[in-house]
Amino acid sequence: MAEKRHTSTHYGKELRNIKEGLIYLGAMVEKAIECAIRALVNRDTELARKVICDDGEIDQLDVKIEEKCIRILALRQPAARDLRFITTAIKINGHLERIGDMAVNIAEKAIILSEEPPIKPYIDIPRMAEVARGMIKESLDAFVHEKTSLAQKVRSDDEIIDNLNEQVFRELLTYMMEDPRKIHRALIIMQISKSLERISDHAVGIADMVVYMVTGKIVRHAPVCKNVE
Amino acid sequence: MAEKRHTSTHYGKELRNIKEGLIYLGAMVEKAIECAIRALVNRDTELARKVICDDGEIDQLDVKIEEKCIRILALRQPAARDLRFITTAIKINGHLERIGDMAVNIAEKAIILSEEPPIKPYIDIPRMAEVARGMIKESLDAFVHEKTSLAQKVRSDDEIIDNLNEQVFRELLTYMMEDPRKIHRALIIMQISKSLERISDHAVGIADMVVYMVTGKIVRHAPVCKNVE
Repeated sequence: MAEKRHTSTHYGKELRNIKEGLIYLGAMVEKAIECAIRALVNRDTELARKVICDDGEIDQLDVKIEEKCIRILALRQPAARDLRFITTAIKINGHLERIGDMAVNIAEKAIILSEEPPIKPYIDIPRMAEVARGMIKESLDAFVHEKTSLAQKVRSDDEIIDNLNEQVFRELLTYMMEDPRKIHRALIIMQISKSLERISDHAVGIADMVVYMVTGKIVRHAPVCKNVE
Repeated sequence: MAEKRHTSTHYGKELRNIKEGLIYLGAMVEKAIECAIRALVNRDTELARKVICDDGEIDQLDVKIEEKCIRILALRQPAARDLRFITTAIKINGHLERIGDMAVNIAEKAIILSEEPPIKPYIDIPRMAEVARGMIKESLDAFVHEKTSLAQKVRSDDEIIDNLNEQVFRELLTYMMEDPRKIHRALIIMQISKSLERISDHAVGIADMVVYMVTGKIVRHAPVCKNVE
């Protein structure tokens, strides 16, 4: 592991510091998702507003970590594996920050939905959120322990999310067809489902970067033309 | 400009090469958007399939540019402005690649919509695409000429897109309310509109990176809690 090879040096401390920053940022965005979904389910607008407000802290930490990474690039001129560690850290940082934005999106929708009666109890959405949070955790564990097998697990969890998103979409479509008064609310819930799906895509992005960091191979692109079949 | 300060050196050539690569990639994704929208409007599934297929080239160029950037970081150990140029190039590259993905999303939706009769002629969607393409062009011009004023223009164009997206959403909502048989098609068009809005966000992301490259300041985050009011 990058920082272990410099354990006793100041440089090693700087690398560890970045790793710890990302773990902390990961915990913040996980909490943001959890709170946004809780705000949605419990129709708790105060909690939703807190998620929106707290995103400022996530943004600040994002900038701080990126600046630290760039400083290391400038002053330490890392090579090989350390360089891959830093470029990976910059990318992971970006993914986590955007996951925070998705949590804000969900919290905003929770506020809108709290103003109208619920269509039905939420079942799939909290499940999706749970899986997505697990994916963030796993992708960061993969980063910390340099485990590509965990990164692979994240990829397979992404399918679960895609299927759930599809299921939510279809179910809500039937509600919309049955009762036009439910269309607006159903649309908002679809957007929440989509935000969770995008969070899962970001977790996959993190996992792909871990594979790059460990193996040196850029794996983020699926085979050409796979969508055409 | 970074590469001008090394005009006659091999290093200068490498930096120029990255800039040219990004301009080329920008042209590719602009074309992908243009074709995806043309495929939608003309119900041309063959063209839509071509957009999906050609995304493989965009992905390949994305990987190639990123590898070149990392190689420069490793071998040239750039400092100060050159370092900002490279980190900016890596981020812009990522934004352009994701814009390509959005064009694929639109092309996929164009194929789905071609199987059903049109709801109404497209007016706002091609306008949004036109503005979004202009934003990509402007943000890359800002990058090439290091012009923060152009970057500012991109930010204000983003508002036009947000308003058009809102307008599309509201209009389609009325179609959905009037006739449940139009719900599914209207949803797909909403997703296309959302993809264009995300393209515009990526253009803003590019513009923000240009401001960082020129001034050294990270400007991507709006003031804290702005969404709460």
